[in-house]
Amino acid sequence: MRLLFLGDVVGRAGRAAVVGQLPGLVSRWALDFVVVNGENAAGGFGITEDIAQDLLDAGADVVTTGNHVWDQREALVFIERQPRLLRPLNYPAGTPGRGANLFVARNGARVLVINAMGRVFMEPLDDPFAAIEAALSACPLGEQADAVVIDFHAETTSEKQAVGFFVDGRASLVVGTHTHVPTADHRILPDGTAFMTDVGMCGDYESVIGMDRDEPLNRFLRRIPAGRFQPANGEATLSGVAVEIDETTGLARAVHPVRIGGRLSQIEPPFWA
Amino acid sequence: MRLLFLGDVVGRAGRAAVVGQLPGLVSRWALDFVVVNGENAAGGFGITEDIAQDLLDAGADVVTTGNHVWDQREALVFIERQPRLLRPLNYPAGTPGRGANLFVARNGARVLVINAMGRVFMEPLDDPFAAIEAALSACPLGEQADAVVIDFHAETTSEKQAVGFFVDGRASLVVGTHTHVPTADHRILPDGTAFMTDVGMCGDYESVIGMDRDEPLNRFLRRIPAGRFQPANGEATLSGVAVEIDETTGLARAVHPVRIGGRLSQIEPPFWA
Amino acid sequence: MRLLFLGDVVGRAGRAAVVGQLPGLVSRWALDFVVVNGENAAGGFGITEDIAQDLLDAGADVVTTGNHVWDQREALVFIERQPRLLRPLNYPAGTPGRGANLFVARNGARVLVINAMGRVFMEPLDDPFAAIEAALSACPLGEQADAVVIDFHAETTSEKQAVGFFVDGRASLVVGTHTHVPTADHRILPDGTAFMTDVGMCGDYESVIGMDRDEPLNRFLRRIPAGRFQPANGEATLSGVAVEIDETTGLARAVHPVRIGGRLSQIEPPFWA
Amino acid sequence: MRLLFLGDVVGRAGRAAVVGQLPGLVSRWALDFVVVNGENAAGGFGITEDIAQDLLDAGADVVTTGNHVWDQREALVFIERQPRLLRPLNYPAGTPGRGANLFVARNGARVLVINAMGRVFMEPLDDPFAAIEAALSACPLGEQADAVVIDFHAETTSEKQAVGFFVDGRASLVVGTHTHVPTADHRILPDGTAFMTDVGMCGDYESVIGMDRDEPLNRFLRRIPAGRFQPANGEATLSGVAVEIDETTGLARAVHPVRIGGRLSQIEPPFWA
Ligand SMILES: [Fe+2]
Ligand SMILES: [Fe+2]
Ligand SMILES: [Fe+2]
Ligand SMILES: [Fe+2]
Ligand SMILES: [Fe+2]
Ligand SMILES: [Fe+2]
Ligand SMILES: [Fe+2]
Ligand SMILES: [Fe+2]
Repeated sequence: MRLLFLGDVVGRAGRAAVVGQLPGLVSRWALDFVVVNGENAAGGFGITEDIAQDLLDAGADVVTTGNHVWDQREALVFIERQPRLLRPLNYPAGTPGRGANLFVARNGARVLVINAMGRVFMEPLDDPFAAIEAALSACPLGEQADAVVIDFHAETTSEKQAVGFFVDGRASLVVGTHTHVPTADHRILPDGTAFMTDVGMCGDYESVIGMDRDEPLNRFLRRIPAGRFQPANGEATLSGVAVEIDETTGLARAVHPVRIGGRLSQIEPPFWA
Repeated sequence: MRLLFLGDVVGRAGRAAVVGQLPGLVSRWALDFVVVNGENAAGGFGITEDIAQDLLDAGADVVTTGNHVWDQREALVFIERQPRLLRPLNYPAGTPGRGANLFVARNGARVLVINAMGRVFMEPLDDPFAAIEAALSACPLGEQADAVVIDFHAETTSEKQAVGFFVDGRASLVVGTHTHVPTADHRILPDGTAFMTDVGMCGDYESVIGMDRDEPLNRFLRRIPAGRFQPANGEATLSGVAVEIDETTGLARAVHPVRIGGRLSQIEPPFWA
Repeated sequence: MRLLFLGDVVGRAGRAAVVGQLPGLVSRWALDFVVVNGENAAGGFGITEDIAQDLLDAGADVVTTGNHVWDQREALVFIERQPRLLRPLNYPAGTPGRGANLFVARNGARVLVINAMGRVFMEPLDDPFAAIEAALSACPLGEQADAVVIDFHAETTSEKQAVGFFVDGRASLVVGTHTHVPTADHRILPDGTAFMTDVGMCGDYESVIGMDRDEPLNRFLRRIPAGRFQPANGEATLSGVAVEIDETTGLARAVHPVRIGGRLSQIEPPFWA
Repeated sequence: MRLLFLGDVVGRAGRAAVVGQLPGLVSRWALDFVVVNGENAAGGFGITEDIAQDLLDAGADVVTTGNHVWDQREALVFIERQPRLLRPLNYPAGTPGRGANLFVARNGARVLVINAMGRVFMEPLDDPFAAIEAALSACPLGEQADAVVIDFHAETTSEKQAVGFFVDGRASLVVGTHTHVPTADHRILPDGTAFMTDVGMCGDYESVIGMDRDEPLNRFLRRIPAGRFQPANGEATLSGVAVEIDETTGLARAVHPVRIGGRLSQIEPPFWA
């Protein structure tokens, strides 16, 4: 089973890359399932219903999010009628939308997608480890789920790696998101879960985490805002990770980064060539 | 001019990788200058005089550090007699040791090495941007320095990228350290400075940032320490970045990650093959 | 009904004040119930079984704690056999000890004591608001409980005040602890709950939050530890709050700070004179 | 010499208290010098030129600020023509306005006022201890200054107390601001500096730090903003500290809290009765 995960889509440049290239990848690589993190898709901050639909139309099966999920307030409403949009699982009880859901892939496999948020240097939400445990218990890999994908949106490498080991052997893939920079440590953990500390963003890398660099630099140097953060508008790099999942065990057989277009070194999964 | 930068050496496994492999790389690649971050070399926490000497003997011209620099208290003393060990520049006035220094490379080039620390989600030190500016002004690239290397030890990708753009065209290389995970965004910035958000660690990656995973996982799950952090002892990956520097301008001609041994995907600079 | 709450007991000086003065206050004021926060009682860090017993022997009915609860590791064990020692309620499921419990006061009243910890600028624990809600629902004021006391151990004034309003009318008293400085904003909230943002510490105030000032000052000035934190050993001020609780409603009729001995201005509840 | 310091003025209610009562206090107590922290005077966020003028007209000699100083962007401009408005001293070089200045009191005394900001759980600015040291050295008590007042705007009690001991004997008064809650630990430190960890706010205390409590409670409970923070509009408590300064030494002879109006217990300096 062929799964692609794309990191945080940032602004117009990021959306253009996804909309322009994902349909071709779905068919070229015969993808069974695609997850895209869309928390920065609307001008860098949040996501609208139209933009979520654009990402789904381009080939995403599920759109995950993170700390920016509610920046566009309409998300609080339309998330209730859009089961393919997830928000972090560990928001308080009563939060609109869902943090985990079961989907059917193109090959018929049942894929559990979990979106959770870290707490180190982030907002204080409920315990993500306990929340992930509960979601996995309700729908275990090899029983109700044929594959399990976890988007763990977090700041520190340590918390992300801890989640990887916590679910090793119980998930097909754990990816970190949020830092907007791809890491080079993709690998299969000892018990079969594919892991990558951060998949990076789909955005213009000639920037400070996807934003035009003037205002971030101004704030670091002067400590006084001079304007808003604006997404950088150069060509985006589509940044993500490709996983070949064993259909009997639901564990990873191969994992490889994907970087297409823009400023970063280009790379594609050799096993789908 | 050929420069190699290796990220945070973690514990015995990291030291074994550096001591075992760096001498061979220096000769195979005809390296002119080598910088190694050694802040976690002593059992994961700090550095001793003997260990610093081991890293220098293995081929490092300079050993940089970060927030763990003083974990072994002897560092406060021996740093005064070891000019090749740097501590973050932006500690208060009066701190033992130096945060920047000029060295002579094997090819005779004068290399300014600056070690500074970020402040976002880190300890509050003096402004690293102002400190770097002062160090660059005192010894500018193309005047007193033929090459400039900056080790910016910081948590967030945004602060590291801001430093990159801040000195673009005024340094040969800016690398981030501290997260212990290599990023895949190595590139040459518009005005000629090679950049990589984090070079990763020289340590065992089957771990939580180089540490045996039991205690980190215990703390995330139970929030109560059950013991000390211990470095993981599996085979380390030597993780760093290779830069080809133009000897007339001091700017980067090529940049490429290095990952040798251990669990990560293996990669070497094609331009030195 | 007469209730006294004393803030964080710090080290030997703090213990001496409690052991020396609390028995006299219990009899002089005819106290029905006494709660003492003991998280810093053992050398400034945590609490031992012997020290907990000393505080109970001196007249405390319950000893609450906070982020330092496990600093003395024996607390993980003896808390299981000491129901009068509470640890923050919002630790993960499975944590030793209890965060809330029902006690019988000298006047026969059933007193629910809840100890919870804030999350702003603190460790990430479970949601304290949800945890307090659950504890109150299980044992509501006016039903299973004749009085309810909440020790909310937190850094920021905003989170503490939010807890006050959250339970207003459902608790007899909400006090903040942790900053080691008494606030002067004791009052009865609109629906009858007595509130004080922080009750301060029982410790020597010629200090930095109860600790000898040399090492804290050293760390602020030099950013490098030069030794351990040691409790200051001058005469402690007993610092707390006195509440007169209506026995029919369980709400507060009067609230007043208590400060006896040491460096701070001296004050006692006029309504018990 | 008689000095009054009033804490953070919050919104319309806080301004009404200052404008309504300060003129009377100046004459009734024959005040020589008045400092008011105005960082929240404009709708809770920042200060405008008109509002600064209102506070000065009401009797303030100097208006200090804190982290909210630039929330009203006009402050970046008018601070340059208003030497009686201070911003934190430890902003980067080149920041508009001043962080310390010498003023002449009604009794002819030269008063150095320093406004600095802490770094623990605050924005990373330059070292406040070094900045205060430099300002004191440039204008020492007993030489160029007859009195020295320091408004240290900070979150933690420890950093504020450390500043107190750091300048003990070199300043007339150190007050903390920012938490919006008055502490009850006013005292004269061993070498003669009056100190109070926080003077509290001039605002409506039936609130969460001066703000209408609905939105703060909503955010703590749901973690999703539902609207803006609005200042609470009930009667404000004028909250501050009164200091009697020895005119020969410039050190404190007496210190006492001031709380007039609103919800808190009422208190006035007995030594000026
Ligand atoms: Fe993002
Ligand atoms: Fe994010
Ligand atoms: Fe490190
Ligand atoms: Fe580090
Ligand atoms: Fe405490
Ligand atoms: Fe505490
Ligand atoms: Fe304020
Ligand atoms: Fe403030």
